[in-house]
Amino acid sequence: MKKHTLSQLGARAEDSPISWLMKAALDRPELISLAAGFTDNATLPLKITREILDGILGSSSKGRSALQYGTTQGDLTLRRLTARRLYSLDFPEISPENPPVSSYSAGNIVVTNGSQQFLYLLSEALYDPGDLILVEDPTYFVFLGIAKSLGMHCRGIRMQADGIDIKHLEEQLEGLRKSGEIRRLKMVYLVSYFQNPTGRNTTLEKKKQALDLVRRYESHAGHPIFLLEDAAYRELRFSGAPVASMLSLDPHQERVIYTGTYSKSFATGVRVGFGVVPDSLLSTILRIKANHDFGSPNLLQKLMVEVLTGTQYESHLQAIQRRYLRKSRVMLSVMKKSFPASVHWDIPQGGLNAWVVLPRKWRTGLKSRIFKESLNQNVLYVPGNLCYAEDSGRRKPDHEMRISFGSASEPDIREGIRRLGRVFSKLQ
Amino acid sequence: MKKHTLSQLGARAEDSPISWLMKAALDRPELISLAAGFTDNATLPLKITREILDGILGSSSKGRSALQYGTTQGDLTLRRLTARRLYSLDFPEISPENPPVSSYSAGNIVVTNGSQQFLYLLSEALYDPGDLILVEDPTYFVFLGIAKSLGMHCRGIRMQADGIDIKHLEEQLEGLRKSGEIRRLKMVYLVSYFQNPTGRNTTLEKKKQALDLVRRYESHAGHPIFLLEDAAYRELRFSGAPVASMLSLDPHQERVIYTGTYSKSFATGVRVGFGVVPDSLLSTILRIKANHDFGSPNLLQKLMVEVLTGTQYESHLQAIQRRYLRKSRVMLSVMKKSFPASVHWDIPQGGLNAWVVLPRKWRTGLKSRIFKESLNQNVLYVPGNLCYAEDSGRRKPDHEMRISFGSASEPDIREGIRRLGRVFSKLQ
Repeated sequence: MKKHTLSQLGARAEDSPISWLMKAALDRPELISLAAGFTDNATLPLKITREILDGILGSSSKGRSALQYGTTQGDLTLRRLTARRLYSLDFPEISPENPPVSSYSAGNIVVTNGSQQFLYLLSEALYDPGDLILVEDPTYFVFLGIAKSLGMHCRGIRMQADGIDIKHLEEQLEGLRKSGEIRRLKMVYLVSYFQNPTGRNTTLEKKKQALDLVRRYESHAGHPIFLLEDAAYRELRFSGAPVASMLSLDPHQERVIYTGTYSKSFATGVRVGFGVVPDSLLSTILRIKANHDFGSPNLLQKLMVEVLTGTQYESHLQAIQRRYLRKSRVMLSVMKKSFPASVHWDIPQGGLNAWVVLPRKWRTGLKSRIFKESLNQNVLYVPGNLCYAEDSGRRKPDHEMRISFGSASEPDIREGIRRLGRVFSKLQ
Repeated sequence: MKKHTLSQLGARAEDSPISWLMKAALDRPELISLAAGFTDNATLPLKITREILDGILGSSSKGRSALQYGTTQGDLTLRRLTARRLYSLDFPEISPENPPVSSYSAGNIVVTNGSQQFLYLLSEALYDPGDLILVEDPTYFVFLGIAKSLGMHCRGIRMQADGIDIKHLEEQLEGLRKSGEIRRLKMVYLVSYFQNPTGRNTTLEKKKQALDLVRRYESHAGHPIFLLEDAAYRELRFSGAPVASMLSLDPHQERVIYTGTYSKSFATGVRVGFGVVPDSLLSTILRIKANHDFGSPNLLQKLMVEVLTGTQYESHLQAIQRRYLRKSRVMLSVMKKSFPASVHWDIPQGGLNAWVVLPRKWRTGLKSRIFKESLNQNVLYVPGNLCYAEDSGRRKPDHEMRISFGSASEPDIREGIRRLGRVFSKLQ
């Protein structure tokens, strides 16, 4: 299609690497995919969902309400339950009935089609082409697709084992201040819980430092700079201590925007996500959501209301946390046996992914020998370079890989890692 | 929020009149709403949905597949069933197993969150601020919200009882050719079946004339001009003969884009819609959809697969068609008794809406005496002027109203229309 038919956005939109990877997996059913961000099929809550939907649709009032349009913002009970849940995750020792701070208000929650749609709505609300965002380096690669299509410019903040490198954040902000580009900086985006792709968890101290820094530099921007905390994997914590969200650091919710989802923690086929939005952005987000779809499917929202009201959500969570703990440990133990000593990784405390760092001279990209050789061995991973934003300030690292223990079975994880080990051993 | 924080799109986005009308209805539970575009609560398919979901979730393979992520484009079986259904609606006499023309290919169908999301995706793919679209005058008002936020410029094509005024379409195209503005014209948007808001149905002859005209003028544009047929209400036909879609007129699907939905015909709480997209736009739409949500909820798609596979869809359709026929006839008969002779309306053959035309000097807008007096009488309608695009070429008519027989009960329809009649009688 000629460029002048498509909009600028249409012309900028690129094929997501996800599509390519999914196609590769579909084309070769014998492939062991350690690339898919799917959850574990065996953990999907068939029984709970069946019982709850049967109850909803067996009641004429509940059933009719579930099969009718809802509101653009989303079901009020679901928003209330979500607000309470967030509050009790942040302040487990205080009763969630009456949160003392306004950051946990159902009125500020918007229900979306997964947290992905929230990322899109928010980006549309804030970004004109050429505007700037600071992202983790590496970051969630589907977000980079949004950024690309909207013409957003990204700058990467280096990651450490416990979250972004605060010093590098400060350097970047200072650089933007000096160049004047800070006037186009709208937001800092942090995937703070068991990050996709690295699995790393950001400490509360770092969250606080990031918020303080951004507040300090805001006067140079001439407008608010928001902090977007993407907590998609938060509930998939299987070890380590819980960490409060940035909402807990911004009691009047002026600068922190939070997004979460029940896709990962309950069922990916249900796709109920949400955003928690400051008052100053709420009406804009709702107007854009009204244009997108004037509300997410009501039946799925009513399902999540019942799931969250009973005890099933907690017991389901505990079961999947146990399972991912075991699968991650299986993966790490086989990696230890099968990978050469020059290959490194962190031990994830949650989420679905491990991040593997190879010697710098080894390439892992789609055209690399390692990727091709892995495909020949029928094993698929996500090349690390797909997770880095376009940022002229540094070369994209190309010696890393995201390996998921989410959807593959234990035997497949063992076999897949062994095969990767054989690919590496040829390069020694 | 200051304008320089929001994007241009964010700043342009306006509150949907829907939000205002919904709030008015929520604030006054005693209100009779003839404004809501909801379907009839009593027709919602509780039993069918319950049985089918129970079957899906009772099978471990079907259930797991339904609760897992699907693909960005949507479930292949659902797309195949949809393609076949469209083909058999257009060519009822020919076997739908092997459609002889490529416009009915599952490969060109994208599953979306209602047809509304498809309208959004397509608009994003084609429109830069300042680009032009021709729309019916009046047209679907939530589409006007999209147009406004994306900075699209609209020109209205006058409506007649059987669809757009083809002569006026030609005049508009000729005017755009002369002014050179045709270079910014991307699309003609027709809500061709039981149009929202007027209930009017476009004849196949007019569809053909529109397509021919647009093809004739395309060379002046320098790029394709697409025809978007919005068939959201197509399956709600309760009288009159069926009309084939524009897909039947474009055998290689070069210029016709089609959107439909199972929201209206099955359940609004399920929100499974779709678009049928020419090859030339398909990858762009899929890329944008990947950024929005990388696929609609799989559970609802699997539900629709089972609904369409069995006989339940047809029997459900027949039941709701009968019901809407009866409700529309009740409405019309009370209108005949209660409204003065100076008030006119068409007899709808489908859909959920009747369009009422008052004498020109009577105003119906949100600030009009009629609207306020109606609210005082606890009855709500959609002011006609909300359904007209911003078009400097004509004054917005302000003497019409959309009255829905979709969601209100028969007694409420009778009482609501009588109250409107009393409001009118005071103006005589």
